[in-house]
Amino acid sequence: MSQNRIVTLLSDFGLQDVYVGVMKGVIATINPQLQVVDLTHQIPPQSLAAGRFSLLNACPYFPTGTVHVGVVDPGVGSQRRCVAVAFPGGFLVGPDNGLFSGILSLSPAVAAVELTNTAYWRVPHPSATFHGRDIFSPVAAHLAKGVALEALGERIDVESLVKLPIPESHPTNVGIAGYIQYIDYFGNLVTNIPAEAVAGKTWSVAVGNVVIPVGQTYSDTQTGELVALIGSHGWVEIAVNCGSAQSQLQVDWGGSVEVVLSKTNVK
Amino acid sequence: MSQNRIVTLLSDFGLQDVYVGVMKGVIATINPQLQVVDLTHQIPPQSLAAGRFSLLNACPYFPTGTVHVGVVDPGVGSQRRCVAVAFPGGFLVGPDNGLFSGILSLSPAVAAVELTNTAYWRVPHPSATFHGRDIFSPVAAHLAKGVALEALGERIDVESLVKLPIPESHPTNVGIAGYIQYIDYFGNLVTNIPAEAVAGKTWSVAVGNVVIPVGQTYSDTQTGELVALIGSHGWVEIAVNCGSAQSQLQVDWGGSVEVVLSKTNVK
Amino acid sequence: MSQNRIVTLLSDFGLQDVYVGVMKGVIATINPQLQVVDLTHQIPPQSLAAGRFSLLNACPYFPTGTVHVGVVDPGVGSQRRCVAVAFPGGFLVGPDNGLFSGILSLSPAVAAVELTNTAYWRVPHPSATFHGRDIFSPVAAHLAKGVALEALGERIDVESLVKLPIPESHPTNVGIAGYIQYIDYFGNLVTNIPAEAVAGKTWSVAVGNVVIPVGQTYSDTQTGELVALIGSHGWVEIAVNCGSAQSQLQVDWGGSVEVVLSKTNVK
Repeated sequence: MSQNRIVTLLSDFGLQDVYVGVMKGVIATINPQLQVVDLTHQIPPQSLAAGRFSLLNACPYFPTGTVHVGVVDPGVGSQRRCVAVAFPGGFLVGPDNGLFSGILSLSPAVAAVELTNTAYWRVPHPSATFHGRDIFSPVAAHLAKGVALEALGERIDVESLVKLPIPESHPTNVGIAGYIQYIDYFGNLVTNIPAEAVAGKTWSVAVGNVVIPVGQTYSDTQTGELVALIGSHGWVEIAVNCGSAQSQLQVDWGGSVEVVLSKTNVK
Repeated sequence: MSQNRIVTLLSDFGLQDVYVGVMKGVIATINPQLQVVDLTHQIPPQSLAAGRFSLLNACPYFPTGTVHVGVVDPGVGSQRRCVAVAFPGGFLVGPDNGLFSGILSLSPAVAAVELTNTAYWRVPHPSATFHGRDIFSPVAAHLAKGVALEALGERIDVESLVKLPIPESHPTNVGIAGYIQYIDYFGNLVTNIPAEAVAGKTWSVAVGNVVIPVGQTYSDTQTGELVALIGSHGWVEIAVNCGSAQSQLQVDWGGSVEVVLSKTNVK
Repeated sequence: MSQNRIVTLLSDFGLQDVYVGVMKGVIATINPQLQVVDLTHQIPPQSLAAGRFSLLNACPYFPTGTVHVGVVDPGVGSQRRCVAVAFPGGFLVGPDNGLFSGILSLSPAVAAVELTNTAYWRVPHPSATFHGRDIFSPVAAHLAKGVALEALGERIDVESLVKLPIPESHPTNVGIAGYIQYIDYFGNLVTNIPAEAVAGKTWSVAVGNVVIPVGQTYSDTQTGELVALIGSHGWVEIAVNCGSAQSQLQVDWGGSVEVVLSKTNVK
C-alpha cells in the first residue's frame, strides 16, 4: 500500500476561481503528503471531447498507480453515475459520461465501482453542483492512500461505462479522410489520422483548397508557412511555423481534412 | 512543531510573469519540504472584494495549521501594515487592508502581529513594490516551519485589523434584496443571499424584469436556460445550464438581485 | 547526492493543453519525490526575449542546486543543440538558442554538455516537436536525482553557448536612453535602465511627449496616474497606480524611453 501515489487533476474550472485550490485543500486534509499534479483546468467549458482527448494523451506519461481525477461534468448532480475505474495505468475518478472512454480505449478498464460509499466522501450530503470537491477529490485522496477500489462503492460492469464515440478516419479515392479532433494553444490542428496510416508513404494534407506539404518539424518550413507533420500526440497535425494554423486556415474543431497519398505509394 | 504545514498563495499577479514562481523560490530556499498550493493568482487586479470572497471560500477546506498568504495589495510600500494573523484554521499573512476580513468574520482572529522583525524577511530593505517576495513569502515559510507568531513582530489588537464592509442582504415586501458579490469563470452569479434565508421555502429570483426558476443543479433546466440554486459556496446563485448567466443577463459585479418568496410561505 | 533538488519549468506552452502536465508525469516517473515549480508557461509564443528576461529574474531566488528547464524553442527538431549547463545557481536544461544567456550574463556558466546520451532521454527516438517531454524533462529529473552533468553528453565550450544580444541603455544629452524590455500582466513597463544609473539622482522619465514623475511605490501617485520607480526587478519601471501603463501610453515591447536627469545632478 503506497503512500506515494500521485493524484492528477483535469477540469474545465479555469484558474480564476478557487475551485481547484479547494479540491487540493480537501485532498491535503486527507493526506498532506500526496503529490498533486494539474493536467489542465482549461478544458473548454463542458467539452467532453476535449477532456477525453486530453486524458487520453496525458495519462500514459504518468507512473503506474497514479490516480487521475477528471471533472468535466455538465450533468453534475443529475442521474449520471460517479465512478472510479481501475485500469493498467492506475485509477480514474469522475463522472461516468464518456470522459474516460479515450484512455480506456487504449488501456481497457479492469474493474469499476459506482461511488456509493459516502464514508469516503467529504460529507454525506454533497453539494449538487460541486462533486469535484465533495466526492471525486476525497475519493481520489483515499485511493492514493491505498484504500481498495472495492471499498468505494458497488461493483459495476466495466462494459456499462459510458463511451463517447469518436469518428474514425477512413480511406478515400485519394488517401484518408479525417477531421480536426483538437486544436491546441498554438493553433496547431490535431487530426484523428494516426501516424501509422502515413508511415513510409509520400503524402500531403488537403484542407479545403489548401494543400499542405509535409515536414519533420515546425521549422522545416519558412516562418508563417503551413506544414503537416506527425505531432507529439502521434497523429497527423497541421501547424504554422511560429504562427497559428487555426487562424491561417480559418478552421475549427471538427473540420474536415484529407491526407492525399502520392500515387507512387501504390504498389 | 510541524514541518508539514501547507502554504497557500492567493494573489492578483496573474500567471504570465514569474512573480508567483519567485515567491515559491523564496519559500523553497527557506524550506524545500513545504507543500505550496495555489488558490488562485487571477484575482482581478487590485480587487480586494474578489480576494476577500475567494479566501473566505477556500480557507475552510484546508487542514488546520495551514498558512494562507494573500497578496492583493494596491497599497504596497505605503503606510498600510504587513500582518500575520492566527485564526482557528491556521494563519493568514499579507497586507492589513481587509483582504482577510471575510474569513475572519467566519472564524475570528485569535492573535495578530505587525511584521516588524526583519530577521524573517528575505532582506532587511525590501522592494517597495513586491512585499509578496520580500516579506510575506519568507514570513509564511518560517511560520510553516514552526516559528512562533510572536517572533514575527509586535503584537497588535485583533480588533484593529482593517475590515472590508460587505453589504448584507435584507428583507423586502416580496422577499430578500441582495447583490451579486462574485461572478465566476463560468459566468455563474454568486449573490450575498445565504442558503438559510430560503431553506424550506418556495422561491424564485428576479434580476431586473427576468424571473428565474429554482433548481437543484445546473442540468435541472434546459441547455441555455437560467436557473437559480444554492451554489457550492452556500449562497443563492444564478446560472445557465452549459452557458453564462453573466452574458445572458448582461449584469456585473454588484448588480441587484431579489429573492421572491412565494406567499404560500407566509404563516 | 541530494534527492531534494527542485526542478522548475518555464515554457511558452500555455496552460490549456496537457503539455506541461505530461512533462510533470515524465519527471514523476523518474522520481516521484521531486518538487516541481512552474515559473510560467505563458511566455508569448516563441518569444526568446521574454523567456530570457523571465529566467534572468526568477533563477536567483531559488535554492542553489535547482534545475531550471526552459522550453521556448522555435527551432525544436532542427539543428539547434540541446544542452545542460552548470552555473553557480544550479543547472539549466533546454535548447541552445540564447534563452539562458540572460541568467548566464549575471552568473556565468561553469560547464556545459550537449545532450547526446540517449540513455537519459525518455525514448531513444524523440518526437521532433516535443523535446520538452522526451529530452529536457527526463534529463532534468535525472540531474535533480544526482546524475552528473558529464554523464548527459559531450562536453562543450561554455563560450560556444548561443547569446541573445540585448541592447544596453546609453547616455544622452539629457540623461539615459533605453527601451521597454518587458511588459508584465499589470501593464507595468520594465525598461533596460538599471537602478544604479539613477541612484542618488533627481530624475524623471520621458516616453514620447509624456514626462513621468518618480515615486517610491505605485500608490505614491493618484489612482490612474503614471509613476516611474525602481521595480522589483531592479530596473527603472513605469506604472499606473491601479491601472495599466501600457494601455495609457499605448506603447509596446521594444518602445523607446528616456530617463531625464535633473541639471542639479551635474557636479
